[in-house]
Amino acid sequence: MLTNERPPGFQLPHGLADLFFEHAEAKARVERLLEETFSRWGYTRIVLPTFEYAETLSTEASPRLVDEMYRFFDRDGHSLALRPDMTVSTARVVGTKLYDHALPLRFYYAGNVFRHVETQAGHRREFTQAGVELIGAATPEADAEVVALTIHALQALRLREFQVNLGQVGYLRGLLCEADDGNGALRNLEQAIERKNPLALERYLEEMNLPEDTRRAIRAIPTLAGDEAVLDEAERLATNTASREAIERLRAVYGILRVEGVAEHVILDLGEVRAMGYYTGVAYHAYAAGLGFPICSGGRYDHLASHFGADLPAIGFALGIERVLLLSEPQVDIAPHLVMCACAHPACRALATEARDAGLRVEVDVLGRTGEDLAAYARQQGAHRVLLCDDGGGYRLIEGDRERSVSPEGVREEMPSWLR
Amino acid sequence: MLTNERPPGFQLPHGLADLFFEHAEAKARVERLLEETFSRWGYTRIVLPTFEYAETLSTEASPRLVDEMYRFFDRDGHSLALRPDMTVSTARVVGTKLYDHALPLRFYYAGNVFRHVETQAGHRREFTQAGVELIGAATPEADAEVVALTIHALQALRLREFQVNLGQVGYLRGLLCEADDGNGALRNLEQAIERKNPLALERYLEEMNLPEDTRRAIRAIPTLAGDEAVLDEAERLATNTASREAIERLRAVYGILRVEGVAEHVILDLGEVRAMGYYTGVAYHAYAAGLGFPICSGGRYDHLASHFGADLPAIGFALGIERVLLLSEPQVDIAPHLVMCACAHPACRALATEARDAGLRVEVDVLGRTGEDLAAYARQQGAHRVLLCDDGGGYRLIEGDRERSVSPEGVREEMPSWLR
Repeated sequence: MLTNERPPGFQLPHGLADLFFEHAEAKARVERLLEETFSRWGYTRIVLPTFEYAETLSTEASPRLVDEMYRFFDRDGHSLALRPDMTVSTARVVGTKLYDHALPLRFYYAGNVFRHVETQAGHRREFTQAGVELIGAATPEADAEVVALTIHALQALRLREFQVNLGQVGYLRGLLCEADDGNGALRNLEQAIERKNPLALERYLEEMNLPEDTRRAIRAIPTLAGDEAVLDEAERLATNTASREAIERLRAVYGILRVEGVAEHVILDLGEVRAMGYYTGVAYHAYAAGLGFPICSGGRYDHLASHFGADLPAIGFALGIERVLLLSEPQVDIAPHLVMCACAHPACRALATEARDAGLRVEVDVLGRTGEDLAAYARQQGAHRVLLCDDGGGYRLIEGDRERSVSPEGVREEMPSWLR
Repeated sequence: MLTNERPPGFQLPHGLADLFFEHAEAKARVERLLEETFSRWGYTRIVLPTFEYAETLSTEASPRLVDEMYRFFDRDGHSLALRPDMTVSTARVVGTKLYDHALPLRFYYAGNVFRHVETQAGHRREFTQAGVELIGAATPEADAEVVALTIHALQALRLREFQVNLGQVGYLRGLLCEADDGNGALRNLEQAIERKNPLALERYLEEMNLPEDTRRAIRAIPTLAGDEAVLDEAERLATNTASREAIERLRAVYGILRVEGVAEHVILDLGEVRAMGYYTGVAYHAYAAGLGFPICSGGRYDHLASHFGADLPAIGFALGIERVLLLSEPQVDIAPHLVMCACAHPACRALATEARDAGLRVEVDVLGRTGEDLAAYARQQGAHRVLLCDDGGGYRLIEGDRERSVSPEGVREEMPSWLR
């Protein structure tokens, strides 16, 4: 039945994946655990379209994402794009459909996003993000809730070792707020800090003609990572009210995270400035032991919803499901597996239905196999049990190496124990 | 905080949807019920890329789907397309990655598919299909399993009234197999039968210069719908071995469905000939009371996998999730909802964590609200309970109209009862 010649050209483009067997189940399991955690924190599901008008997704707040979007046309000539993240579409829904709803709004999502990427190993064109958006609350409590939820989500996934590097993009912006230097200079500085490149940082600082105390404070940013002492040092270096308030805000958030009992997972890191252009306050990445890139990024973005007409503060985060899956052997929660022969007797078919209703995974043979043929197939599939009709209205039950006769009543009695 | 002026132009293109609140949860619930049912029948999950090479998805077996695909380019100049169904990609995975795996393969999926549609109410560009593919089994048992699983899936969704119209595309093709008339004539006849247009059917029959007994048999097809008597009549009208064997096959499948105890939901319908071009044997649609279009379509497609190098028989079906959701008020399975004030005391935060671990949905205020303010918000949200810190280390608990004092221990004792 099988030909061994496969036509060429049916490969998947780079950066895309097929998942089946335990890998597909493991991904669904991670999504379920996250959705359950988000729901317990009072977040409700939002389901967004995979594509929409390219113009809608092209906010000035996230130029990098806009560059990376896949664009195409519909038959009416409208320009469409695949969503590059879920945050912009959520802001659109809030701004256009929920602008008069009671606040705050708490949404969670799990869905695929799409970006043009270089042809490189590990870079994905399509990946799954699960995350939350907390909209309409500008308080330190809101910041802390989202960071704490990130940590509880990572705990729910039983990641062995992880940390959240928590920064505040408001500090650098505060230091620069008296300098008339435009956004380009800020981006250059952020990039130099992100890449921990002191030479580039120094060059940009020279170009910008800043006062010496501002330069000293900015120069220190890449080193400001650790416990609360970081905040004291940053406050000492702060040159104005804006930068001092940014640190006070971070201190308040950290205080709540201590009360929440999750501060042990948090490293204060003022060098945590990269992230989407749209972040405006606290911003963070989560890292897990054994992975060289973050598994989660989040932060406050207070100006995105106003793009869609609702001037609402917001904070959110997104976890990369494929990255989480790199961290462990696929784990699946799947019911024990029973293989049955295809018996033409109604009582036998009814037994299959009973076993399914009890919660077992039941595969009834469709290839006319009996006896050792079917048992061999079941072993290959990793089935826990095989049930074969015998000639007298009873069954032969194979469990591992053991085989024995069981009556239909016996099967019914034993069945609950097969679920364990 | 809210502006009431919303910029125009942020509408969603026609045929796309945002889902939130109970509508999002109801969709997820339907998907979970179906996935659970498929899993209990021994099917395992497959996750497919949202887009891939347009050429891969363009099989000659499904010209209509190929016409309706959204196409675009990547930066390497490759032509890509959004998947118009899940069956072609599943066949690609089987043909290119699983061609030497033990048979049969049983896969289920739940995912979005994309098609260019006319600007009409109710036509969707993006919709969610959940379905199965049973690959590598050509037996009547395999046909019957997939039809029976369709019926069990619809039962799991608690649809009040539904029926499966089960046909056999092999009958018409069998009647025509001695006529040298090409595929176009077959399609014309199928369309006339599908649209129950006797005049068109008669015209095509005239053009085709068929023997009178063949014409008589084809003319009868639109009327051949009902119980097993339909099979007797079709067999009487059959003109050759191919058409007789097609009916014998359908009789065998129907017999197994009776043994399975699901035949009461099945109407034999030889006029059930529409469907994707790639069907080759039994083919069916499921209809629910109150909906003018099918909620599910399925059938045997024995030549699709060979396009990808593995000459394997297959049968599958897909349910339209949005169509199912049209049939009932949104139903959600969601844990009871508790709103708590934001207390700065660690014991109070720990209580929120305990309540979440117990399975409650717990929303801690992030807007600094207390007393009646928070209670009013909670009522608006439909929360079941509000827990407010009092000054003495205890709580005020509001349940509906009742309010009373509870100690932290009291809360812990009562909590399990809040889950009901």
